[in-house]
Amino acid sequence: MQKDTLLIYSGGLDSTTLLWEYAARIALAVNFSYGSNHNEREAECARWQCRKAGIELIEIPLGFMSRYFKSALLDGPDAIPDGEYDGDNMASTVVPFRNGIMLSIAAGLAESRGLSHVMMANHSGDHEVYPDCRPEFVDAISAAISAGTYAGITLLAPYTDLTKAEIALRGLRLGVDYDHTYSCYRGTPEPCGRCATCRERAAALAAARKAIGLH
Amino acid sequence: MQKDTLLIYSGGLDSTTLLWEYAARIALAVNFSYGSNHNEREAECARWQCRKAGIELIEIPLGFMSRYFKSALLDGPDAIPDGEYDGDNMASTVVPFRNGIMLSIAAGLAESRGLSHVMMANHSGDHEVYPDCRPEFVDAISAAISAGTYAGITLLAPYTDLTKAEIALRGLRLGVDYDHTYSCYRGTPEPCGRCATCRERAAALAAARKAIGLH
Repeated sequence: MQKDTLLIYSGGLDSTTLLWEYAARIALAVNFSYGSNHNEREAECARWQCRKAGIELIEIPLGFMSRYFKSALLDGPDAIPDGEYDGDNMASTVVPFRNGIMLSIAAGLAESRGLSHVMMANHSGDHEVYPDCRPEFVDAISAAISAGTYAGITLLAPYTDLTKAEIALRGLRLGVDYDHTYSCYRGTPEPCGRCATCRERAAALAAARKAIGLH
Repeated sequence: MQKDTLLIYSGGLDSTTLLWEYAARIALAVNFSYGSNHNEREAECARWQCRKAGIELIEIPLGFMSRYFKSALLDGPDAIPDGEYDGDNMASTVVPFRNGIMLSIAAGLAESRGLSHVMMANHSGDHEVYPDCRPEFVDAISAAISAGTYAGITLLAPYTDLTKAEIALRGLRLGVDYDHTYSCYRGTPEPCGRCATCRERAAALAAARKAIGLH
């Protein structure tokens, strides 16, 4: 298989599963840091996984986001609410247009490297609370990237119709080591277990383990 | 008039004219530097004009572009070809997906500041050689920004149907001081006069001056 794809790679559960499932076609993984509570722990996991997979990793700091952007995710662990992703609970953790920014930079970098695709780990459980996860956004930015690059770079999002539990199930079957992934929005050394990302991750892994008879 | 707009502001002829024509509604101007030959001279002009107009200017360095992106525009004055914007002459000066990246960051910053619009100085003379100046790109990124922000931020491009000479004419009528704008792709202290941007700028200003009886 041709190495023709750039992966936007956070070091979390979803994108780590993508990294391993598509390792044969991923030429380059890119990790963005923007001053969030959990960026450094995610980046450590991204380095560990890429080293193990033999895939080049570029880390791009986006200092302007921590300096000028407004989001609870950039304001320290105490600004993160407890509880589920329901209602407006997590709206404060939106980082304005984050996916648009990461996808645009990835598109320029892919074009510079002569690659044909940018891959991202959006999935069916992505939340309406984040406008830049919605299908209308993904369709439009995909068209923009294709029209705005010489190579007509296309966006690949193979997990669009999967739930997080289904992604975890694929990963467990592939032997992905989820101990070296990180998700907690508080960014504490031990994941807090109370924020929406921790709860969702735990539920997905529990469901996936149950499905293949693990405990 | 409400101050509801963020301007992507290079310090060149087109965006400086926008700055002055829409000064009453521009809350914030943003200048991006990405290691091109002419960035620093453009930024000096942007500072001068914003100081004079009383408009806040934010300067955002995009170090990853000079480090990882491929373009003659980032490779020093000698990499810039002489001559007109015809044929494939200027293709080497494309900075991959530059407009997509600047527009995405501008959208996130506008959302963080509670602004409703992002304004850019694309115009009818923008060249087919740059894929991220084409109408299909502009339409798609505009839809992506609107769908991907809470506020439904919209893209304003009031010069879309104007030529560079028509823009210069508006500017001369507004009294814009074009001595404090910079365009040369070589970035030399005195503009080289031979690259495509120098030629185009000189022709536009000459036509505009002629139209209002200046010499």
